[in-house]
Amino acid sequence: MEDCIFCKIIKREIPANIVYENEDFLVFMDNRPTSPGHTLTIPKKHYRWVWDVENIGEYFSVVKKIALAQRSAFDVDLIRSNVYGEEVPHAHVSTWPETEGDKLDLALNAKKIIEAL
Amino acid sequence: MEDCIFCKIIKREIPANIVYENEDFLVFMDNRPTSPGHTLTIPKKHYRWVWDVENIGEYFSVVKKIALAQRSAFDVDLIRSNVYGEEVPHAHVSTWPETEGDKLDLALNAKKIIEAL
Repeated sequence: MEDCIFCKIIKREIPANIVYENEDFLVFMDNRPTSPGHTLTIPKKHYRWVWDVENIGEYFSVVKKIALAQRSAFDVDLIRSNVYGEEVPHAHVSTWPETEGDKLDLALNAKKIIEAL
Repeated sequence: MEDCIFCKIIKREIPANIVYENEDFLVFMDNRPTSPGHTLTIPKKHYRWVWDVENIGEYFSVVKKIALAQRSAFDVDLIRSNVYGEEVPHAHVSTWPETEGDKLDLALNAKKIIEAL
């Protein structure tokens, strides 16, 4: 979608700290993180809501993969996640480790997750 | 697990307002709802965390099914969901429509979801 900020990230028109992608999904660091290592997982196809995504099983297989990497990278058991979606009108699943640290060092936190994948 | 309240709901040892179940998952009304129609979706096998569940794709296919029924039953676009899990040590996904109304009438709200499934 033309004016969608997440579609622009997918097309590399806006920079982001990308940690993972496959054919259908992209994962990048949330730039307003709740905690260090906070990511957003989005479908590459534009959907308004997470619940509209057709291949929902594959979607959450990617979310799980990221959550397990966050658990390992930040050495915590509790990985929180939410699906809200009113802020940006492109489906996104938010995932973050329950931990403290420098949440604004997106590049370092991205590197930790990539190494744990 | 012997002392797990959600395992007891699965075994019908504790009553709950069940809205859906299949071989592997059970969905029932949260008895401390954020909004009318707030549900919990759990695996029948005891896992500590959602991210430990093996058939995660099937798990979120059930969550999506419920979210679409909530959307229809309560006539709202925004269905929120979260995965936290520190309250009860059995994997659970919380899902609720962004709406107002009598959130404590669990039986009526369960009926609305069941009819929309």
